[in-house]
Amino acid sequence: MTNVLGVWPENTHQAQILRLLRDGPCSRAELGDAVGLSRSKVATELDRMIDRGLVETAGPAASRGGRPSSIVRIAAATRFLSIDIGASTLDVALTDGELQVVARLTERTELRQGPTAVIAQALELVTKLAADSGTTRFTGAGIGVPGPVSFHEGVPVSPPFMPGWHRFPVREMFSTELGCPVLVDNDVNIMALGEKHAGIARSFDDFLFVKIGAGIGAGIVVGGDVYRGANGCAGDIGHTAVDENGPQCLCGNVGCLEAYFGGAALTRDAVAAARAGRSDQLAEQLARIGTLTALDVTRAAAAGDPVAVGMVRDGGRRVGQVLARLVSFFNPGMVVIGGGLAGMGHALLAEIRGVVYRSSLPLATGDMPIVLSELGDQAGLIGATRMISDHVFTAS
Amino acid sequence: MTNVLGVWPENTHQAQILRLLRDGPCSRAELGDAVGLSRSKVATELDRMIDRGLVETAGPAASRGGRPSSIVRIAAATRFLSIDIGASTLDVALTDGELQVVARLTERTELRQGPTAVIAQALELVTKLAADSGTTRFTGAGIGVPGPVSFHEGVPVSPPFMPGWHRFPVREMFSTELGCPVLVDNDVNIMALGEKHAGIARSFDDFLFVKIGAGIGAGIVVGGDVYRGANGCAGDIGHTAVDENGPQCLCGNVGCLEAYFGGAALTRDAVAAARAGRSDQLAEQLARIGTLTALDVTRAAAAGDPVAVGMVRDGGRRVGQVLARLVSFFNPGMVVIGGGLAGMGHALLAEIRGVVYRSSLPLATGDMPIVLSELGDQAGLIGATRMISDHVFTAS
Repeated sequence: MTNVLGVWPENTHQAQILRLLRDGPCSRAELGDAVGLSRSKVATELDRMIDRGLVETAGPAASRGGRPSSIVRIAAATRFLSIDIGASTLDVALTDGELQVVARLTERTELRQGPTAVIAQALELVTKLAADSGTTRFTGAGIGVPGPVSFHEGVPVSPPFMPGWHRFPVREMFSTELGCPVLVDNDVNIMALGEKHAGIARSFDDFLFVKIGAGIGAGIVVGGDVYRGANGCAGDIGHTAVDENGPQCLCGNVGCLEAYFGGAALTRDAVAAARAGRSDQLAEQLARIGTLTALDVTRAAAAGDPVAVGMVRDGGRRVGQVLARLVSFFNPGMVVIGGGLAGMGHALLAEIRGVVYRSSLPLATGDMPIVLSELGDQAGLIGATRMISDHVFTAS
Repeated sequence: MTNVLGVWPENTHQAQILRLLRDGPCSRAELGDAVGLSRSKVATELDRMIDRGLVETAGPAASRGGRPSSIVRIAAATRFLSIDIGASTLDVALTDGELQVVARLTERTELRQGPTAVIAQALELVTKLAADSGTTRFTGAGIGVPGPVSFHEGVPVSPPFMPGWHRFPVREMFSTELGCPVLVDNDVNIMALGEKHAGIARSFDDFLFVKIGAGIGAGIVVGGDVYRGANGCAGDIGHTAVDENGPQCLCGNVGCLEAYFGGAALTRDAVAAARAGRSDQLAEQLARIGTLTALDVTRAAAAGDPVAVGMVRDGGRRVGQVLARLVSFFNPGMVVIGGGLAGMGHALLAEIRGVVYRSSLPLATGDMPIVLSELGDQAGLIGATRMISDHVFTAS
């Protein structure tokens, strides 16, 4: 597979035009207004961009009076790739230049196999996706991994539970194999970017995205951009101690938020409740399948099982306690709750809200919404392509 | 008093030149290199700026070979004003265009008198300072207040313990009276900016400044700029609960960090220790003066009084616990400890470091320095003039 459209915007006006068209087709006249260029100057830039295959004409524009204008859009051949490497799944998707999904494949994986095997599996999925959709060239690829990342180097840094991934050249390997620009970031940061681009946080410049899934983490958006911190590990709220005398966490410390809530903690507690005969529903499920997951707890809670409801409430309270402090510190405009366990929905949300609104400073929480993600499992996908398109749609 | 130099930079090159000269005089040749302008273009800009009284020539430059160059500097008449409104003191200073202090006056005040009286007192100090130093015009003024501020409006918002200050038009009032551009911000944000401009955090873009004084608060610097949050109250770590069963705080809640440490808590604990006969040194001081302050605890701790040392250690541990969580969340490049009680120095620092390094994620703390402010009680002063000079040295 060869590079991209092979070309980059030549100047900041072209980059600005591409970012505008990423949100949908525009008339030449509208583009000129938005970019602040005269009609003739915008025409010059657009003609060059059409010649170079970056954009194309899509028909006449509705008349605004005056000279007729035409609609332009991002080249239909534009294809961004999103590769979300999760704790137990690989999610690969292809979008057009407007970040709309054109194809998607998901497969189970096992991070502990190490990076070489997982990346090979991801590349197989990409090849299949490209073949199925007749794609021969990628404009760029955004990769998410479930751990801290040195963004500028494109390598994971000390990711927990990921043997072999520390400083593995993930970006370089994908870039070589895909033949296109690649950026790698922490999966939560990417989901936050997805919410900023197309989700409920679209109109917020400063907000927190909290992922509750296998793990718990936060994406921090400052001034519309992801804030990654000095070492790329900003937002790691899952492994800070909420109780010095709390239970043992898989990370080796005690009393971490993830030792109370998240995939592994819920599985542990659900199995214990089933075995102790405290929940008929969980006990039946355990007897039938031989195992329980966090999703079983979600289902049991939705069906009104009191033990499962208690687990969701308890988890929400713990998350709320951590968030209350962060809200006072960071004073976000909004908090978005996403990730696999956000499916616990309003019971979880109600508990989080109760604690945060009770414990944070009134000034910080007075008009601050705490809401569920609207994008669900598309947040990471959209965020990854948003990240790489921001990079590609920058003047070279 | 009339406005400023009366003039603003006319374009971004002039603004850039002024910001460079704020760090000290430069040769015309060096300025051209730094701004990326040809020798003739930089000469054109400088000639206009000299005509308009923004900069002046300060003699010939050392030869670099080629044509002789001259040294230019910010106009000697440039005068920035810093007005730091503290819990119990007013600190007013005048700096030159390089933010060097040329005059300073400090007086006790009482915030509870309300804004009209305190602002009148500050303006009297300004008049005295101006008369003593022969200053007739201010280039700009930066104002610090000890509470949350809506930065864009220049008004305090729900500041605790400051009756009458909520939404009082502080910026407008000073601006009218001083006849110059004025910006108002939270005192901790301003101290953080001082550390960024001339303190130990000069080379850090992302760091936390923690003020421990009458109150406890944090200034958050992201990408070199102060991050203020959605409502201007980011960094408020003094009134978040560290223990739901903790002591009553002056703010009305229980278990806040400030209920354990900071001026009021130390005074309370010192008096209790003196009365209970647990500390001879504090008891003697209480008997002699009839009152105890946090500074008495600092002195007693420095003299080895075991109760006072215990109070400093206990406070450091509490601050460390709060910071450990924030460090994992924010992943700063550095943490700077300042404010009146930073005079507790290395005993306090050792305790904070111990807790943070023990409890935070290794990746976030691996190479993160936790250090004492180098600027001491000049941090706010330098930060306030840095803030307003950034504003004035922007192309209009």
